[in-house]
Amino acid sequence: MTGQDGNVGLVEIKYYTFGNPSKEFSLESGEKFGPITLAYETYGKLNHQKSNAVLVLHALSGDAHAAGFHKGDKHPGWWDAMIGPGKALDTEKYFVICSNVLGGCKGSTGPSSKNPETDKPYGLEFPIVTIKDMVNAQCRLIDYLGIKRLLTVVGGSIGGMQVLQWMVSYPERICSAIPIATTMKHSPQQIAFNEVGRQAIMADHNWRNGDYYWNSPRRGLAVARMIGHITYMSNISMAEKFGRRLKNHKRAFKFGTDFEVEGYLRCRGDNFVKRFDANSYLYITKASDYFNILNGKKLSEIFIGLKAKVLVIAFKSDWLYPSYQSQEIVRACKLAGVDTIYCEINSTYGHDAFLLEVNEETHLIKHFLRTVFNRQGGFA
Amino acid sequence: MTGQDGNVGLVEIKYYTFGNPSKEFSLESGEKFGPITLAYETYGKLNHQKSNAVLVLHALSGDAHAAGFHKGDKHPGWWDAMIGPGKALDTEKYFVICSNVLGGCKGSTGPSSKNPETDKPYGLEFPIVTIKDMVNAQCRLIDYLGIKRLLTVVGGSIGGMQVLQWMVSYPERICSAIPIATTMKHSPQQIAFNEVGRQAIMADHNWRNGDYYWNSPRRGLAVARMIGHITYMSNISMAEKFGRRLKNHKRAFKFGTDFEVEGYLRCRGDNFVKRFDANSYLYITKASDYFNILNGKKLSEIFIGLKAKVLVIAFKSDWLYPSYQSQEIVRACKLAGVDTIYCEINSTYGHDAFLLEVNEETHLIKHFLRTVFNRQGGFA
Repeated sequence: MTGQDGNVGLVEIKYYTFGNPSKEFSLESGEKFGPITLAYETYGKLNHQKSNAVLVLHALSGDAHAAGFHKGDKHPGWWDAMIGPGKALDTEKYFVICSNVLGGCKGSTGPSSKNPETDKPYGLEFPIVTIKDMVNAQCRLIDYLGIKRLLTVVGGSIGGMQVLQWMVSYPERICSAIPIATTMKHSPQQIAFNEVGRQAIMADHNWRNGDYYWNSPRRGLAVARMIGHITYMSNISMAEKFGRRLKNHKRAFKFGTDFEVEGYLRCRGDNFVKRFDANSYLYITKASDYFNILNGKKLSEIFIGLKAKVLVIAFKSDWLYPSYQSQEIVRACKLAGVDTIYCEINSTYGHDAFLLEVNEETHLIKHFLRTVFNRQGGFA
Repeated sequence: MTGQDGNVGLVEIKYYTFGNPSKEFSLESGEKFGPITLAYETYGKLNHQKSNAVLVLHALSGDAHAAGFHKGDKHPGWWDAMIGPGKALDTEKYFVICSNVLGGCKGSTGPSSKNPETDKPYGLEFPIVTIKDMVNAQCRLIDYLGIKRLLTVVGGSIGGMQVLQWMVSYPERICSAIPIATTMKHSPQQIAFNEVGRQAIMADHNWRNGDYYWNSPRRGLAVARMIGHITYMSNISMAEKFGRRLKNHKRAFKFGTDFEVEGYLRCRGDNFVKRFDANSYLYITKASDYFNILNGKKLSEIFIGLKAKVLVIAFKSDWLYPSYQSQEIVRACKLAGVDTIYCEINSTYGHDAFLLEVNEETHLIKHFLRTVFNRQGGFA
């Protein structure tokens, strides 16, 4: 499965189903739910001691396909730049796992999955799931793979929230953790951006209270994605990429695409609806809004007893998850005596930087992981 | 018409129609258009020399009703805090005029007005109008009122763009100008936010290419307004106003209103659709995106020859129209040798500050206007 040029080559998606007999999995809401399927991919080989496993956690629009190519695809997985032979998550050394979140729409059980009781898609019958539920489901996959302790859990944005949840829910199951461009809880502005995206979906005539699987609310989902994209970029990166350049060097017909930035957003919105489910957008954004790792505790108490080494990464121009939120994570770690490194990368890419600042992230993560791996008794 | 407690009391909207015979008004696009009606209000008295007239220019969702009360209304006009006896725009001294912009929906000719040729609302038959067109129409109103020179033109946001346009189009017609929280041209991020609002409207099933006047695209317009509201507030003002407080102290039904900030946005969106036309939203935001006072000129050339005194006001937490954009206006003025004052007010209200920082604005504008008024030979 290992390819050339630092690429893992052809990969295949796998599935793990649990919670059979039905409804055996307890959700944070108290509800019992199941069966649950998680779609996942793995890259590299699990060593004999099972001590080299790395769990990658994806953000809102990501999925299990983090690296390599699916048969016939032109584009590799979403974090291919970071995963492969010699890369930050070096598949010559580590066994990398990535699974689609519970509630997602790329193979894992979510609102677009068939409800075995009705033989129709769940739609809004799907239960509210939280970041904690996602992490609990991931832990079941890790159990199934026979891994007692993960070398690290790593992810950006909502993936970073899952990292924080691993630190709190399963401190004994991780040697280290790398939360990137994330927060311990959403600010009202972050909730507001998510809420407007949800409103755009629910305003779509085709949404029909989530029961739309023959004709999806494409326009609404596209608008939600466009709002997202504005928040993922920085003012500077937009100015560098588009300026005020006109798309057709003259004014368009009425309310057509005049400026390049308009064309970019429309294109991004349209592409997204081909690959994403609107209900999953509602469920996952809501999970991120509910997320509050503090949950009534003091800042100094959250990570008490955590033995894992932590690397927190933030980006200077990220205004959606501003660096003060990452610094708050560092503060909580330090107050609990956790071995923590903080790095704020001087990027102009905004929140998207966690997908784009490959060189900086590679340096940081490669060195960090090597240290952790050596400390826990792997090979040098 | 002057009330008590610094209020102008009961006011009435007036109308001025020009461009009859039909299509006598030249638009920037080259198109001829007309007839045009401008809705306007006035407060205070025009003095004998006609030297005390102040033109207030409204932002995206504003209108001619800037101060006082319409019969039966509980709430005063949108800038009542600034207009009245003893206030910043002191109606004991000044004659204050405010007109609804061309393209608007509160009495001035816009897409919701009846097209005399078809006897139906214009809809998208309404021509594209620019900030310059709006200002040219305002100038016709000022001619009609017999005013040769305005003591000042003042406005925030898109109103501020109109101020800048007055400075360029009619430098000899103004003694001073007060652009507030505005820009010489939209950045791609500002265009992007507008574009997503437009997309939300056009995604609404009821928009029907602008031909909807029996059943308007309320949901889409509400989403557009919600996006706007996020950009009008700051992260800090949202945190102070809502934090992560829950609306019902428990989780709501699925995708209902959990957090106070969600309820606020939904409420603001719903209220807006009762009073605003979706097509006007498209036309006015597009006008603001097209606006570029530089228009191929050098920064040093734009305001050359301008004799008017200029007061530029920005707000520290305004991230929609960041203060660097106001500083750029100041730079252009200084390069042209224009007598310019700059003040950045230390507010946490974000862009909304231009409507809320009444005390600071009052101090600045009151003193500034007195100086200008005395200099041009009014009474002390």
